[in-house]
Amino acid sequence: MKSKKITQKTLKKAGLPPESLVYVGDKIKKEKVRITLFSYNEKDFEEKECADIEECLQFIEKKNNVKWLNIDGVHDTRIIEKIGGLFNIHSLTQEDILNTEQRPKVEEYPEYIYIVFKMIYPDGKGNELLFEQISIVLGADYVITFQEAEGDVFDPVRDRMRTGKGKVRTMGADYLAYLLMDTLVDNYFIILESFGEKIEDIEEILLTNPQSGTLHKIHNLKWNLLFMRKSLWPLREAINNLIRSESALVKKSTFLYLRDLYDHTIRVVDIIETLRDITSGMLEIYLSSISNKMNEVMKVLTIIATIFIPLTLVAGIYGMNFEFMPELHMKWTYPAVLLFMLGVGVGMVFYFKRKKWL
Amino acid sequence: MKSKKITQKTLKKAGLPPESLVYVGDKIKKEKVRITLFSYNEKDFEEKECADIEECLQFIEKKNNVKWLNIDGVHDTRIIEKIGGLFNIHSLTQEDILNTEQRPKVEEYPEYIYIVFKMIYPDGKGNELLFEQISIVLGADYVITFQEAEGDVFDPVRDRMRTGKGKVRTMGADYLAYLLMDTLVDNYFIILESFGEKIEDIEEILLTNPQSGTLHKIHNLKWNLLFMRKSLWPLREAINNLIRSESALVKKSTFLYLRDLYDHTIRVVDIIETLRDITSGMLEIYLSSISNKMNEVMKVLTIIATIFIPLTLVAGIYGMNFEFMPELHMKWTYPAVLLFMLGVGVGMVFYFKRKKWL
Amino acid sequence: MKSKKITQKTLKKAGLPPESLVYVGDKIKKEKVRITLFSYNEKDFEEKECADIEECLQFIEKKNNVKWLNIDGVHDTRIIEKIGGLFNIHSLTQEDILNTEQRPKVEEYPEYIYIVFKMIYPDGKGNELLFEQISIVLGADYVITFQEAEGDVFDPVRDRMRTGKGKVRTMGADYLAYLLMDTLVDNYFIILESFGEKIEDIEEILLTNPQSGTLHKIHNLKWNLLFMRKSLWPLREAINNLIRSESALVKKSTFLYLRDLYDHTIRVVDIIETLRDITSGMLEIYLSSISNKMNEVMKVLTIIATIFIPLTLVAGIYGMNFEFMPELHMKWTYPAVLLFMLGVGVGMVFYFKRKKWL
Amino acid sequence: MKSKKITQKTLKKAGLPPESLVYVGDKIKKEKVRITLFSYNEKDFEEKECADIEECLQFIEKKNNVKWLNIDGVHDTRIIEKIGGLFNIHSLTQEDILNTEQRPKVEEYPEYIYIVFKMIYPDGKGNELLFEQISIVLGADYVITFQEAEGDVFDPVRDRMRTGKGKVRTMGADYLAYLLMDTLVDNYFIILESFGEKIEDIEEILLTNPQSGTLHKIHNLKWNLLFMRKSLWPLREAINNLIRSESALVKKSTFLYLRDLYDHTIRVVDIIETLRDITSGMLEIYLSSISNKMNEVMKVLTIIATIFIPLTLVAGIYGMNFEFMPELHMKWTYPAVLLFMLGVGVGMVFYFKRKKWL
Amino acid sequence: MKSKKITQKTLKKAGLPPESLVYVGDKIKKEKVRITLFSYNEKDFEEKECADIEECLQFIEKKNNVKWLNIDGVHDTRIIEKIGGLFNIHSLTQEDILNTEQRPKVEEYPEYIYIVFKMIYPDGKGNELLFEQISIVLGADYVITFQEAEGDVFDPVRDRMRTGKGKVRTMGADYLAYLLMDTLVDNYFIILESFGEKIEDIEEILLTNPQSGTLHKIHNLKWNLLFMRKSLWPLREAINNLIRSESALVKKSTFLYLRDLYDHTIRVVDIIETLRDITSGMLEIYLSSISNKMNEVMKVLTIIATIFIPLTLVAGIYGMNFEFMPELHMKWTYPAVLLFMLGVGVGMVFYFKRKKWL
Repeated sequence: MKSKKITQKTLKKAGLPPESLVYVGDKIKKEKVRITLFSYNEKDFEEKECADIEECLQFIEKKNNVKWLNIDGVHDTRIIEKIGGLFNIHSLTQEDILNTEQRPKVEEYPEYIYIVFKMIYPDGKGNELLFEQISIVLGADYVITFQEAEGDVFDPVRDRMRTGKGKVRTMGADYLAYLLMDTLVDNYFIILESFGEKIEDIEEILLTNPQSGTLHKIHNLKWNLLFMRKSLWPLREAINNLIRSESALVKKSTFLYLRDLYDHTIRVVDIIETLRDITSGMLEIYLSSISNKMNEVMKVLTIIATIFIPLTLVAGIYGMNFEFMPELHMKWTYPAVLLFMLGVGVGMVFYFKRKKWL
Repeated sequence: MKSKKITQKTLKKAGLPPESLVYVGDKIKKEKVRITLFSYNEKDFEEKECADIEECLQFIEKKNNVKWLNIDGVHDTRIIEKIGGLFNIHSLTQEDILNTEQRPKVEEYPEYIYIVFKMIYPDGKGNELLFEQISIVLGADYVITFQEAEGDVFDPVRDRMRTGKGKVRTMGADYLAYLLMDTLVDNYFIILESFGEKIEDIEEILLTNPQSGTLHKIHNLKWNLLFMRKSLWPLREAINNLIRSESALVKKSTFLYLRDLYDHTIRVVDIIETLRDITSGMLEIYLSSISNKMNEVMKVLTIIATIFIPLTLVAGIYGMNFEFMPELHMKWTYPAVLLFMLGVGVGMVFYFKRKKWL
Repeated sequence: MKSKKITQKTLKKAGLPPESLVYVGDKIKKEKVRITLFSYNEKDFEEKECADIEECLQFIEKKNNVKWLNIDGVHDTRIIEKIGGLFNIHSLTQEDILNTEQRPKVEEYPEYIYIVFKMIYPDGKGNELLFEQISIVLGADYVITFQEAEGDVFDPVRDRMRTGKGKVRTMGADYLAYLLMDTLVDNYFIILESFGEKIEDIEEILLTNPQSGTLHKIHNLKWNLLFMRKSLWPLREAINNLIRSESALVKKSTFLYLRDLYDHTIRVVDIIETLRDITSGMLEIYLSSISNKMNEVMKVLTIIATIFIPLTLVAGIYGMNFEFMPELHMKWTYPAVLLFMLGVGVGMVFYFKRKKWL
Repeated sequence: MKSKKITQKTLKKAGLPPESLVYVGDKIKKEKVRITLFSYNEKDFEEKECADIEECLQFIEKKNNVKWLNIDGVHDTRIIEKIGGLFNIHSLTQEDILNTEQRPKVEEYPEYIYIVFKMIYPDGKGNELLFEQISIVLGADYVITFQEAEGDVFDPVRDRMRTGKGKVRTMGADYLAYLLMDTLVDNYFIILESFGEKIEDIEEILLTNPQSGTLHKIHNLKWNLLFMRKSLWPLREAINNLIRSESALVKKSTFLYLRDLYDHTIRVVDIIETLRDITSGMLEIYLSSISNKMNEVMKVLTIIATIFIPLTLVAGIYGMNFEFMPELHMKWTYPAVLLFMLGVGVGMVFYFKRKKWL
Repeated sequence: MKSKKITQKTLKKAGLPPESLVYVGDKIKKEKVRITLFSYNEKDFEEKECADIEECLQFIEKKNNVKWLNIDGVHDTRIIEKIGGLFNIHSLTQEDILNTEQRPKVEEYPEYIYIVFKMIYPDGKGNELLFEQISIVLGADYVITFQEAEGDVFDPVRDRMRTGKGKVRTMGADYLAYLLMDTLVDNYFIILESFGEKIEDIEEILLTNPQSGTLHKIHNLKWNLLFMRKSLWPLREAINNLIRSESALVKKSTFLYLRDLYDHTIRVVDIIETLRDITSGMLEIYLSSISNKMNEVMKVLTIIATIFIPLTLVAGIYGMNFEFMPELHMKWTYPAVLLFMLGVGVGMVFYFKRKKWL
């Protein structure tokens, strides 16, 4: 269950001075930090993996190039501090990068814009969602991305850089930041797609044979949608802030792209809302199908009891040991009683048929 | 079920560069692209079907005329690109035209206004709604409409053009765009009308004999209303933006018409909300009618059991084989016991009558 | 049921050019159009019924007088068109007058203000509400009102005009328009009053003997409130627009009256909300009273079964035909068993008493 | 029940000209009108009860003094009219004073500010709330308060005036108006206090033995909260308007006090919301306790039936009259069957214990 | 239960003049008032516990130092008054400090900013939350904090002051105020953490064996979240006001820290909302698990009754005492009937298996 995870990460930090650089995140993501650098302009392109940030320095200082520095793993506070020093990143931003429980947001600082996004992917079993925080620092001619672990959804962007496909090599750092955000938002659609499939499965079960396990499936879906909504809802405002920002770091020409990104974000949130409504509807159907089943069971019980209990009384009466029961001594009474019982039984069945209980 | 459809279309695009022109839509709509052109002013009127966009070029270049270019089918990216090049349509707009899962919106570009609407019609069986995206590009003296498939609701507009009825021939391209939007909104009323009829049918069933099928009918209605609401809700804001737009493409004289259109849109949304409230009310009635039925069944069971079980005990007592049961040997006891049983039974019935259970 | 009515009227118009003058409304209201004119100033007063609009012309052209032209019946498009021509009423306004499914609204035009209100009255049987659209066109020195049918709530206003009571004869056309709106809003209070009485009736039934018919009564009330709310909700904004309007047609001196009207409108909406909350509470009470009844029924069944089924077993045991059952041959066993049964029965009753089931 | 009261008062006025002075209120409050006057400044203090308003005139005209004129009873329209004439009170305000169904509001007029508050107190039995309208007219150097009946919560204010305690004697009329409003808001806290106690009582009943009467208690509370909320919700906006008012009647120095009053108002509304949430929670608990009880009853029934019905069958089998049933003639079979029955019964009990049904 | 506590504190004050200094709070917190003073700048640091406020005076008057005066216990009105006099604190602020039922808020006064926060900690048993009011008065070079009782969460701040760790010694009073607020907000995360654990426990119970006690646990959690939300919701607006404040008391350099604090506050509220949604989901699961259990019980009853009641009839028939029942005298009929009964029983079981009832 995820309820614990929501709150636990933040705990480690409480009690420390506000700008203390302490990593707050899941331990399972703590592998070695990997630093990769892309440096490019329309003609030039370099890609490098650096063992340490110093190794990358000469590339970073190159003028006229857009630099994309990607850090996989934010648990090594020393590296974050070094990069922070190099790029003049405020200690509060550094703290936010390390604390991976931020809400998506856009914060303007004089020398850079700090953007927090969530990367979402299903866990191995496909029942839960994992949320990874992506911090994007957009400077004048560089973009730095901090990820919690290796593996991301940015490979298409990398491919386009390498091959020079698309506009990315001809545009500035702000376009690169846009491209990364757009890729992340595109990824949300894929996650939602898989939800659509799950909903279809549950709908089919609901129509045929709803069971108590179905309820847990619906709730699992509901909670996944809830967590996803919580993670993406602030995006709208964040991107809107970016659009209305007057920072020189975002060029006019990028405006149309950001508006498009905003549009996508609204659509994501919209789809989540729709899926939530559908999930609620499925819950209602599930609950009333339980009621209906109960009704069915009760009807069977009532029909059986109503037919057989009176007949049992009749049999009981003729099982009494009174001395003077003249009908017991007549030849035709036994078959008559049997016929009478059959008649009552059949009559009852017809009665229930007419009342639509059968 | 529609839940899958919501998300699936977008999937194809994820991972491609943002302005890639890839068609995202249902395959069943992929027929040959059909291009028709209307060119008119107060005196002049021409109507033409072009095999290819080049064929239409000479008409498009005609000054002093309002041109309406209608494209049925947006799956042929080559045609969209060509038209985009001709009319200077931004690649992001081209992308939106191809991706038929947009929300209704109005976007201003320097040379044109891009409008997305949904055309809604029932499928063959009448249980589900189909949504077709209509993209409208409004330029200085032209309107281009992109539809997903042939067949639309614009025939009355075409007739008025041909016959010169109404104001359309005397007004500019912005009035034509308004006319198309107004026709689409009018069409929503027709859809809602059919919902009104369905609701009436369900209401009648609810009053006579609600069954578990009724629940599915109500939910089908509820979901159709949900999808319709999702598709039309953004319209209000979109048209409001158009009204407050300062673009030179929308003339002052069209303002009153747009305000009227806005008014209609609000009414559509209003009716949807009302229908949703009614649908919720029907759900409540359905559920409590199920409860009531259960109550009825339980009452029958209880009455039968309460009358016959005690009598069975009496019969059982006189069926015991004790040697010394003096009453067994008296002549009047058997009829007395029978009468006693009858009395108890009748008494019970009266008791239940008084308690209003019968 | 009203759900159909909501949508049907609008259907007739869909597909026609936007300013087509087509009557959209209920046929039952189509009687002959009746035109009445009041023309007055502080000293002068004339009242006239005109067979046709031309007949009224000379009175309308009278300067220094405030004119109130009342049209009962809007189904005769010819008359609307004529009046529209005479008073320079925009074709979109004419269309709105004819389409009686408008939401309440206030629209400013250069030469007049167009106001739509709803007149609400109960139908004959008192179970449903009828909604009649009142269009008010407020010009510099005239007010034109269009009603769907004869019969309205304006008689007190007419009386005051005739007798010169109140301020109406000393004030301008804007005050007259205010007076008419105020009368309509006052009428809403009367309708709500009757709802209050119905609620009291239902509350009494709920406390004594709720039945399945009660549910339908509550829902009928709920839906009436829903429709009333839908009709009156937009009023607030409409009147607020009127107050903030900078049109010269509304004099400063009328401002305080409009503020008062706004206040009344808010109170109407407030009362509707309160009644809706009460209705929801009644629904809850109804549903839990059904549950409670079920509980009662189940208890009876359980008590009967729990007392008699074990005793029946005892009787059954001594009805077995084993040869060697020594207790059958003792003299005191039969009364002992009877006493034992009685004891168990009485014991059970006490047990249930202590468990508060009886 | 209060639903009728909400709407009835207003009825009397509908149909009259807008500024007609007609009293709209409960008759039970109609005692003789009582007029009291306080006139004071830092040094001077006079208190007077006047038989008629003329009697008070000379005190009212005294300069340099703050005057507080309190009218107990607003059913005598003649007195209201006289006072209205004396103090130049607009006829619409006079109408609002008489119509005691106003919502709390603040209205600025050129010469005074008109404030409507509700005084709330429990009725004798403590189950319902009574609402009395307090109209406050704040002028340059006077405050007039109109109450529906004698008896109010202002005695502490009067005491402070008489004894000169607190700041009231050193401040202007606006401070007095603030003081009165503050006293009224303080009174709301006392009412809410008593609700807190009732909730505690109900909570205790819910934990021990919820009955159908509990539901009515919860709903009574819920409705009282609903009415209180309706009466106090508009206060926030009203006081906020007063704070932002630019009227010269409210001095800068009073601003901090009004901000404090606003704060108190928000807290009142906040507490009401909290109590409403608690009440809803109690409803939920009540309803699920009903469900739980039903479950208990059903379990008892099922256990009894499951244990005894099969045993009854066994007894029935050995009560059959077949000639050739060899086991009937063996000596050990009767006790064996009894033991078997006992075994089955005990086994069942263990089975239910393991299934946690017992 | 907490419902009473919400309202009771305020009661004591109602009826007193608005600025009366009366302590409104829980008696259990009334220990001796403890006054501690921290005075520091980058080089200098002094810490002192004063028996009375006069003792501290000389330290307070020291220029160039930031002073933090902490008062544990606000029930001694005399001390509050003295401090109020010393620091020019408005009597309304003094009143708010004493009345410990304030909502969180930020109020600007000319010479200081008054901030109210809540400190939240679990009671001994861990089932309820205790709320303590922290009043912060931020002046030009001093911060005064008023707490209800000894013991707080500020020790880390004190440690950093003593050791000179972090920025606190180099920054002004506004940074200290920020630090205190940040520590309080960090503390909320710890509380929420413990909620996360409780939710996990309840989730496990829900999956295995939900009982009626579970409902009370869920409601306890729900109410704790409700109270916490009520206490923290106003924080957002309060801190936002602080950020947008133009008071000279808050330096530009502190702005980024306040924005960070605002961000944390939003996250706290966000987590509370998420936990509330989860709690609601758990309630739904609990309720439908109750329904499911009922269904199970009913099925068992129905199965037993359906199998055994008809067989009992058969046994009853052959227990009748008719003289002429030829089958009673044949040798094979008894075992045949037994076999028939067995067959019917087994058949029923199979039937129920196929219907998935077993």
